[in-house]
Amino acid sequence: MHFDILPPDTALAPALQRKIDQKTKPPGALGRLEALAAQIGLIQGTLAPALRQPHVCVFAGDHGAARAGVSAFPQEVTWQMVENFLAGGAAINVFCRQGGLGITVVDAGVNHDFGRRPGLLDAKLGPGTANYLEQPAMTPDSVRAALQRGRELAHALAANGCNCVGFGEMGIGNTAAAALLTHCLAGAELATVTGRGTGLDDAGLARKLALLERAVARGGQPRDPFAALAEYGGFEIAMMAGAMLGAAERRMVLLIDGFIVTAALLAARAIAPAILPYCVFAHRSQEPGHRLQLTHLGVEALMDLDLRLGEGTGAALAFPLVQAAVNFLDEMASFASAGVSDRPCISISLEQEVQRTDNLGSPLGH
Amino acid sequence: MHFDILPPDTALAPALQRKIDQKTKPPGALGRLEALAAQIGLIQGTLAPALRQPHVCVFAGDHGAARAGVSAFPQEVTWQMVENFLAGGAAINVFCRQGGLGITVVDAGVNHDFGRRPGLLDAKLGPGTANYLEQPAMTPDSVRAALQRGRELAHALAANGCNCVGFGEMGIGNTAAAALLTHCLAGAELATVTGRGTGLDDAGLARKLALLERAVARGGQPRDPFAALAEYGGFEIAMMAGAMLGAAERRMVLLIDGFIVTAALLAARAIAPAILPYCVFAHRSQEPGHRLQLTHLGVEALMDLDLRLGEGTGAALAFPLVQAAVNFLDEMASFASAGVSDRPCISISLEQEVQRTDNLGSPLGH
Repeated sequence: MHFDILPPDTALAPALQRKIDQKTKPPGALGRLEALAAQIGLIQGTLAPALRQPHVCVFAGDHGAARAGVSAFPQEVTWQMVENFLAGGAAINVFCRQGGLGITVVDAGVNHDFGRRPGLLDAKLGPGTANYLEQPAMTPDSVRAALQRGRELAHALAANGCNCVGFGEMGIGNTAAAALLTHCLAGAELATVTGRGTGLDDAGLARKLALLERAVARGGQPRDPFAALAEYGGFEIAMMAGAMLGAAERRMVLLIDGFIVTAALLAARAIAPAILPYCVFAHRSQEPGHRLQLTHLGVEALMDLDLRLGEGTGAALAFPLVQAAVNFLDEMASFASAGVSDRPCISISLEQEVQRTDNLGSPLGH
Repeated sequence: MHFDILPPDTALAPALQRKIDQKTKPPGALGRLEALAAQIGLIQGTLAPALRQPHVCVFAGDHGAARAGVSAFPQEVTWQMVENFLAGGAAINVFCRQGGLGITVVDAGVNHDFGRRPGLLDAKLGPGTANYLEQPAMTPDSVRAALQRGRELAHALAANGCNCVGFGEMGIGNTAAAALLTHCLAGAELATVTGRGTGLDDAGLARKLALLERAVARGGQPRDPFAALAEYGGFEIAMMAGAMLGAAERRMVLLIDGFIVTAALLAARAIAPAILPYCVFAHRSQEPGHRLQLTHLGVEALMDLDLRLGEGTGAALAFPLVQAAVNFLDEMASFASAGVSDRPCISISLEQEVQRTDNLGSPLGH
């Protein structure tokens, strides 16, 4: 499969930096928002970027291995939480409503029949992946199908006017799949990327690691993203990777959430490295493997709130910061337009200064 | 002066925690937002808190010492930036508009005659403080007047229905005053709290430190907050401290911005220690003294975006996170209401698990 992603043209970078530096603030004083504004300007190829129809896609899928005990919660929670999303009662619903973000729930392969439902996109590839302790989680055909359906979803969002998409997920057992993918695609030790997920205790964590070691003993550590996705899944991760690639093809801003979403990005980036400059890393998750993923990618997240909920909640919570970066670039006055002095005082030596101070005479105040 | 601040009653804490834990998410999965939701619930004394009429107050004042070279920018920038605030062109205007926050600019003592202007509160105590290199910046009377005017402003905001106030400031030279106050009130070494402010180079930083050492040689290191404010000012810092105290008297949520705002809080806390539980620390500034202040107070900021602009920009940018904490508490479904399983799988030993896995039979996927 070929994805047609070009890195953003950097020819505009100096003009963007000039525009940022002419705003009524000391150079660099808006910190990471300045880099973010420049990044979005480059993605959109304009000095006046705008975020339109921002949207979060929550990809849901079940994992055959969930029944083997890699999660603290039973597999049924996947479909129950999808119902919660559709009813508007989950954290991601609350944060999307607050931020003015649209939301689409994508059934990539949940072990439940939802029927036709408003807000739910049926892209089901099966009732959950196979158990990777016994066989590959997905066939090569279903990996390609997942990537293609994800891509088409992103293209459809773009056709509807959306240019900023946040990625979220739901799938009991998917931190385990994400750990395996991070092991394969970032070369990380399994023990360092295996975390507590939704809340395993010490014994549960040891059990999860032992199960994942068994999985690797069977399926190995493929470096190829298609092979890694096929071995360990899941449907929602592969479809999310395809949606990321499709979104970058359409030059959208990608809001990357936590550990599982970043695992999908590792696959997407292995397929098309030029995807990276389109990504904004929303937050650093409490899940220990996420820190390793971010270091591997050489990126820093915007926020660090000890979140570990998934659903795209970090992406939705970071959206106001992304909007703020665009807004200051578009709306702030320049030194010239506001009549504010942009020239620092002439630098003088301390000796001169002290002398001048001594000669100041009466102070201004009382 | 006496400020009548009671710490929030913690009797509701267990009920708040129960409500948070019954939301459809793993316990603790919303990380720092959970602690924030509990804090605001306690401040407001309710299981269903709400943020009403959130507002940012930007306190502006000039500093006699600014003319001695403690800042990279000339003193005139203070009033020019106030004009920029009034015209809606500064970063704080952009972020308040975005977040739905009101904004009031308070002239605590700018060296400029603005006349009567919409959006500007004239609380001027003089055309800037005296130069603390030569004499105390403020008289004891003007310290008390600043605190009282600030308090009355906060009470007026509360009377207008506001229960969440962000603090910001503008005053060329005020990182120098904040460094001196932090030296006095947190016992910090002057060298560790003296930073580049709006952008001093190495020579400028050395000059600023030498000037501040001269100031301390004259004015000492008073631990008493009234005395410290009188020695080093400024008008905007003292008035902000009074507004913080008045806001805590009215049980408002206080959004604390960066280095200068936190210096004002050091003074307010020295006057009334019970103010601290009303404070939300918005961000950690790039100014090195801010890290020290936060450590001294034993608190952690929500964001770390390398901001160093002041104006209350960090407080305004953090407001959506504060709103998100309140919103998840109010709007998220509970496990019971959503029909989601809240019981983790029964913990079983690895041996049992492996055996069960082996007996699973055919996988769910294809």
